[in-house]
Amino acid sequence: MSGNQKIRTPVTIYGQHYIITGTETSAHVKKVARLVDEKMYEIRSANPNLDTSKLAVLTAVNAVHDYIKLHERFEHLEKELERLKE
Amino acid sequence: MSGNQKIRTPVTIYGQHYIITGTETSAHVKKVARLVDEKMYEIRSANPNLDTSKLAVLTAVNAVHDYIKLHERFEHLEKELERLKE
Repeated sequence: MSGNQKIRTPVTIYGQHYIITGTETSAHVKKVARLVDEKMYEIRSANPNLDTSKLAVLTAVNAVHDYIKLHERFEHLEKELERLKE
Repeated sequence: MSGNQKIRTPVTIYGQHYIITGTETSAHVKKVARLVDEKMYEIRSANPNLDTSKLAVLTAVNAVHDYIKLHERFEHLEKELERLKE
């Protein structure tokens, strides 16, 4: 491993350019950016009058909602796994 | 169950008011909104010059990143569970 070396990945989301800096691979960052970009256009098609800022906030709300739901399923699996290991 | 009845939940995220409409409970929607709100202030403290729109996009990027990472762990658990059930 290369330790804490930072990777800079340029991405375009909803027509805006960003440089995402972190320890994740560029392939991962580009995948994340593509999903956010797609979700923003999807939410816009259902809410055509929203400005970019509100659209992005609702995209974040959507993603956090998905995260919490998946986390509930994750915890359920963890419990099932513990039960099987007993 | 009450079928497809829509629930309208008013929330405030980063000083802006939204009505989130859907089938989730208001408690869930408020929890999601609070997490997005907190994350936006957290990202702003690391990037004080970002405008609200870019800040919200980066918050969405952050949430989708967390989702993908959790999904990888979820798939790993699922495989482990299948193996134990064999």
